[in-house]
Amino acid sequence: MAAPQRKLDVVVDSVRRLLRVGATANLLNLLQKQHPADLAEVLKGLQDRERHATFALLIERNGKLAMEALSELDPENGAALLADRSAEDIARFVQELPSDDAAAIIDYLPEELSTSVLELMRRKESENVENLLEYPERTAGRIMNPNVFALDEDLTVGEAITELQAARDVEMVFYLYAVDQRRHLIGVSSLRRLLLVSPETPLKRIMTTDIVSARVDTDQEEVARLVASYNLLAIPVVDESNKLVGVITVDDVIDVIKDEATEDIYRLAGVTRDERVFTPPGESLRMRLPWLAVNLGTAFLAASVVGLFEGTIAQVTALAVFMPIVAGMGGNAATQTLTVVVRGLALGELSWANAKKAVVKEVLVGLGNGLAIGLLAAVVAWIFKGSPMIGLLLGAAMLINLFVAATAGTLIPLGLKAMKLDPALGSSVFITTCTDVAGFASFLGLATIFLRYLQR
Amino acid sequence: MAAPQRKLDVVVDSVRRLLRVGATANLLNLLQKQHPADLAEVLKGLQDRERHATFALLIERNGKLAMEALSELDPENGAALLADRSAEDIARFVQELPSDDAAAIIDYLPEELSTSVLELMRRKESENVENLLEYPERTAGRIMNPNVFALDEDLTVGEAITELQAARDVEMVFYLYAVDQRRHLIGVSSLRRLLLVSPETPLKRIMTTDIVSARVDTDQEEVARLVASYNLLAIPVVDESNKLVGVITVDDVIDVIKDEATEDIYRLAGVTRDERVFTPPGESLRMRLPWLAVNLGTAFLAASVVGLFEGTIAQVTALAVFMPIVAGMGGNAATQTLTVVVRGLALGELSWANAKKAVVKEVLVGLGNGLAIGLLAAVVAWIFKGSPMIGLLLGAAMLINLFVAATAGTLIPLGLKAMKLDPALGSSVFITTCTDVAGFASFLGLATIFLRYLQR
Repeated sequence: MAAPQRKLDVVVDSVRRLLRVGATANLLNLLQKQHPADLAEVLKGLQDRERHATFALLIERNGKLAMEALSELDPENGAALLADRSAEDIARFVQELPSDDAAAIIDYLPEELSTSVLELMRRKESENVENLLEYPERTAGRIMNPNVFALDEDLTVGEAITELQAARDVEMVFYLYAVDQRRHLIGVSSLRRLLLVSPETPLKRIMTTDIVSARVDTDQEEVARLVASYNLLAIPVVDESNKLVGVITVDDVIDVIKDEATEDIYRLAGVTRDERVFTPPGESLRMRLPWLAVNLGTAFLAASVVGLFEGTIAQVTALAVFMPIVAGMGGNAATQTLTVVVRGLALGELSWANAKKAVVKEVLVGLGNGLAIGLLAAVVAWIFKGSPMIGLLLGAAMLINLFVAATAGTLIPLGLKAMKLDPALGSSVFITTCTDVAGFASFLGLATIFLRYLQR
Repeated sequence: MAAPQRKLDVVVDSVRRLLRVGATANLLNLLQKQHPADLAEVLKGLQDRERHATFALLIERNGKLAMEALSELDPENGAALLADRSAEDIARFVQELPSDDAAAIIDYLPEELSTSVLELMRRKESENVENLLEYPERTAGRIMNPNVFALDEDLTVGEAITELQAARDVEMVFYLYAVDQRRHLIGVSSLRRLLLVSPETPLKRIMTTDIVSARVDTDQEEVARLVASYNLLAIPVVDESNKLVGVITVDDVIDVIKDEATEDIYRLAGVTRDERVFTPPGESLRMRLPWLAVNLGTAFLAASVVGLFEGTIAQVTALAVFMPIVAGMGGNAATQTLTVVVRGLALGELSWANAKKAVVKEVLVGLGNGLAIGLLAAVVAWIFKGSPMIGLLLGAAMLINLFVAATAGTLIPLGLKAMKLDPALGSSVFITTCTDVAGFASFLGLATIFLRYLQR
């Protein structure tokens, strides 16, 4: 039975208890009852020291299960668990993994260690891994499994089934790819179709030649889009001359989709895509600081707008009290708009052809929200300060600010997309700068114009 | 060949041109050359009027292709394309779709129309759809396909293959589920395993009885987690008494994963999960306004903190100029922390057992960033205003603010998780309130204490 999340939490607690009392035999027994994928979840749920101790026990006593669990972990965590073992050990274990999993883990080992590991692995396996690592990150070549099951196009269905029966070490086969003698990809057939015809039928007769494939240099995001929109279980990967060099299965595509979603969420918040919860503090600092420094620059820009009206504030200090409201509401409205637009672009719902409609919609929503929130703010400010005039100014500034938020929140990501840049890069920071500047300029500018009505 | 995104843009342009000049025959010809999934992408890329015109043409001339494209669209868009046709037409077309796709589309039709459509559909199909719609949204029961291929557990492999050959209308079969006479789920075998044994082998001998399954009431997010972590191509769905009632395939799981990512991104920005780029303005307004109103409340809270120090600002108005910097930097640092923590929780990398480590890390990063940014801000403020004292205050406030940002950004989502609430609900707004209050209080509080050094 599948273990629901709650059950895994119980296993994590048991593992921790057994570790504490040193009940090694019981612990091993418990671990061996778990599915490798569950074991990976359990390992993730432990503290560093516990995780290393558990994994060390498992790899000594049941290397196969340990490596199966390892390949279910993300490669960064997997590499961390192996890093304190000898190169001989690592080579021995890693060469049993599928080449794509092995490559991902070796890539995260410290450089010297990874070189020794590759030298100590079986020749064929290390060559496979080195080939994969030559492709740029985030391309089909880097994430494919080179161990692809391909058949000679001239076989019959019966011969194909015989070959399939012999090929026991190939990962999940759902499609049979047919190649010519120089390994050019010619056709594809599903496993099920083999069962529907007599064994003498030539493979050529039942295969489709209209193949959805990726090239080694195809971006992994495009690979994911292809697999998702054509509802594929696997996609063949070919080189520049259309030779079949690998396959990417849907389970790897799911990882890509999660990665790309993480990247989008991160970009909107100004976080580098390589950061994870447990990235060491020093590294996180180095990753986040440049972004905060950029923000400091934009914040000084907003401050200098306020600086222009220092004289007005000196006469009516109550204005300073309402400044956080102007800035905060503009920022929030802009973030809402930006998020909807960026996600719409990522999901392919928004394009150039229908961009105008989105801009009009957001501006209408911005004006509507501006009116409602402006009115509410005006009333509250009036009650708060007893001055209807300052409430009126706040309401008017809010209306302008939410209009700017809607316009900037739509046009900036669309513009970035048109320049072939990632729309999520136009993170909330740039748009918040627009709303801060517009908000302070309109609120304090209006206050300066109507200064005599504010002074009592 | 698969159409890369660029090629689809060209098709969209051609469709628009052919529509403009009224070249119906050429347009139909172009549309019929597309894969249904590509056609869905093309439809999404058109403006409303163009999309309706194109779909109307297609459904008149090639109903099958039109419906295939429709089931590749998200159900909301699909329903919109059908909504202006007669109930008879809709019933006729929709009953050809897999029941899960049909249910999703019918669910988005206006209530009266959907009732008539269900009455006009073939009995068996409408029953299937009505059964699905009875399960709550976002559960396995709602998204499963009830048309699942199941075999009597007592068959031989040869008999199973014969049944498979006869069952031509079943969607992608990869696993064969074996059931007893009362349709209880007993075992599973992969298609490939059938090929590895002789036809006389009893199915029971090769099937696994250790089945990963979902119950009709399992949350769709849990379904996605199971399929992703066990690398499944499909998961069987059973009712309370373990009877097999449906199957969810990996392509539907990919949609769920995308949906859940959208929900996380949206929640962080305070956007309702049902909103899309083209949600009508009135509806968007209604969805976003409550959130903005909550924000207005928190903004007034920050404003009232500033209000406490109005006397200080009256004496040193330059303080008001630097307020946007204090608020802005705290908000940005908090958003970075919050995003990393929320995503870590969503991906299962962060749990209670290792939460302490995450808190310590974020606090260290917050202090480090606070020192660096505080120093930088102090120097810039000194140059900007010629006063070393105000720079010093700004730097100190920044250090405190970034420390608060790190603490709140980690503890609030962890606390929500502990209370079984969605951590993403602790959106940046609540945390920004913390940083605003802490930032203004420390900056203006320190200024009040050291007031005599600020006045010259």
